[in-house]
Amino acid sequence: MGAADVLGKQSLVFREPVFIQGWGSVVGKKEGEGPMGACFDQIEEDPALGAENWEEAESRLQILAAKQAVEHAGLSMEEIRMIFAGDLLAQSIASSFGIGQLDRPVYGLFGACSTMGEALSLAAVAVAAGAGTHVLALTSSHFATAEKEFRFPLEYGSQRPLSASWTVTGSGACVVGSRPGQVKITGITTGKITDYGLKDSQNMGACMAPAACQTISAHLRDFSRSPEDYDRIITGDLGYVGQQILLDLMEEEGFRIGKVHEDCGIRIFDRETQDTHAGGSGCGCSASVLAGWILPKIAAGEWKRVLFVPTGALMSRMSFYEGNSVPGIAQAVVLETVQEN
Amino acid sequence: MGAADVLGKQSLVFREPVFIQGWGSVVGKKEGEGPMGACFDQIEEDPALGAENWEEAESRLQILAAKQAVEHAGLSMEEIRMIFAGDLLAQSIASSFGIGQLDRPVYGLFGACSTMGEALSLAAVAVAAGAGTHVLALTSSHFATAEKEFRFPLEYGSQRPLSASWTVTGSGACVVGSRPGQVKITGITTGKITDYGLKDSQNMGACMAPAACQTISAHLRDFSRSPEDYDRIITGDLGYVGQQILLDLMEEEGFRIGKVHEDCGIRIFDRETQDTHAGGSGCGCSASVLAGWILPKIAAGEWKRVLFVPTGALMSRMSFYEGNSVPGIAQAVVLETVQEN
Repeated sequence: MGAADVLGKQSLVFREPVFIQGWGSVVGKKEGEGPMGACFDQIEEDPALGAENWEEAESRLQILAAKQAVEHAGLSMEEIRMIFAGDLLAQSIASSFGIGQLDRPVYGLFGACSTMGEALSLAAVAVAAGAGTHVLALTSSHFATAEKEFRFPLEYGSQRPLSASWTVTGSGACVVGSRPGQVKITGITTGKITDYGLKDSQNMGACMAPAACQTISAHLRDFSRSPEDYDRIITGDLGYVGQQILLDLMEEEGFRIGKVHEDCGIRIFDRETQDTHAGGSGCGCSASVLAGWILPKIAAGEWKRVLFVPTGALMSRMSFYEGNSVPGIAQAVVLETVQEN
Repeated sequence: MGAADVLGKQSLVFREPVFIQGWGSVVGKKEGEGPMGACFDQIEEDPALGAENWEEAESRLQILAAKQAVEHAGLSMEEIRMIFAGDLLAQSIASSFGIGQLDRPVYGLFGACSTMGEALSLAAVAVAAGAGTHVLALTSSHFATAEKEFRFPLEYGSQRPLSASWTVTGSGACVVGSRPGQVKITGITTGKITDYGLKDSQNMGACMAPAACQTISAHLRDFSRSPEDYDRIITGDLGYVGQQILLDLMEEEGFRIGKVHEDCGIRIFDRETQDTHAGGSGCGCSASVLAGWILPKIAAGEWKRVLFVPTGALMSRMSFYEGNSVPGIAQAVVLETVQEN
């Protein structure tokens, strides 16, 4: 029917290119002090962003990132046809209470930390269907909202195991559309919920690695490509523990991705000096690193083709109380430069 | 680009028809005893569906509805290219833990009780983009999981105000695709988050009515249609209180929809005998009524054109604790018969 074709078992290839026309990233103080500090558009020194509670602070991150992306695309907010947004919180309240103010049509998403991959994928699908010249993909996370939602009261000062990740305070947004931009989305691979039965919510990298492996191997098979066809394959927030598991699992599938693999969670913090253990995590981790680091490099032609694969750990306080496992999901998006050389 | 065109401010019209090829509904005992009991494909007498906890019970509802819909479409689960699914629970765990077993690519959605409108919309957009011949839209709710998530322990036996709704135990699923079926989706209108500042989570109909009004009036303006162009305009779960507010608000917008308006929440229970106060609610309410009552009537040609508009109240336990308002959102889908006469 539309401007895309199914490919293999889980993928879609865009016959007419879908572009990323602008992007924006906003992060907290700790992220600003990390190795990527200089990459982000905006660093907020106040963790509460002047809000009365952490949830509202996270909503403000989304609004700031959305505005950055729209400005970067040279547009006004009224030109955004619809927003695809999500976050980690119960009933996605960071999104519900933030983007309402932008007065745009909205579809809310939930894919845990994979949500930026899902938002970009569905934004691209919508553009391919003809649903808009400009749509916005947007996600966020906040260290304090995530601790409150999933872990311990901050005041309790609980010790974190080395396998635990540190939720990124940040938001990233992309304007996706049919009018040419500096980066194009040429394909997507939709993830399957993958459950190896792991139950340790303090080791989410291990819980998500099987899903990353499922999506990346399906992607490479669907597109008949090898890892070398990508300048980078970049997962969202597997961290150090999850990365090693992913590399091992991929090798069992017959793919060696070690040379091209990067992980946003590993990149965003300095493990030695920032005490972040396994690395950064959260919807805002891959989203802010995408907007701050990955897209500029592709736009500049430094990387020709990147597979962006945010990963999510599907769990809630309730599923944890009930002794459930933590299934994972990973959504992959092929990003390519429009630079010729 | 694709097989759809933007229309007006919030809508999309499909140039090539997108079809609903099959549907399925599964509900609990109380819903089975209601006025629509005979409409549903399956009535589960055991509220726990043999599961160990309520969340798992809700997951089982989703799997049963998905299987009914796929069977009704004459397909096997392997032929479903992707699933759009969501529920009301924190981190959408009813969906995460249910549909993983179906081994299909998944995009998770969150739009509170509007999720079936969102799932149908995005399924249609995906088909229009060329993302698959058959995709599945699926949502659920369960009385016991919703009470646990949002209200009081059942054992506490708290009194419910007359404005409160009763969460439907049920799930509905639709197979959406490009191959002809008995019902077609001809357009959608994407909802905006609409906040009138109401804070009473025991009166969700009032919280959602402004969003329903925003989406329905935008829809009628975008399509240059009047309410009489529809055999029915059917909201999700406004209930008795929300319905009256919607009719009043619509009149202020210049549209009299009283003659064609129906509400799934009002229809699913008998107020006199079932003690359900304002009516049924939940993602599973509009989804099961869609699959059990609305789609069969359209397929039979009894109704030529219906606007299906599930409404959602965007709130969480945390947003309630923090004294936030309850914004609403409503997602509209135009359903038409393929019968000629």
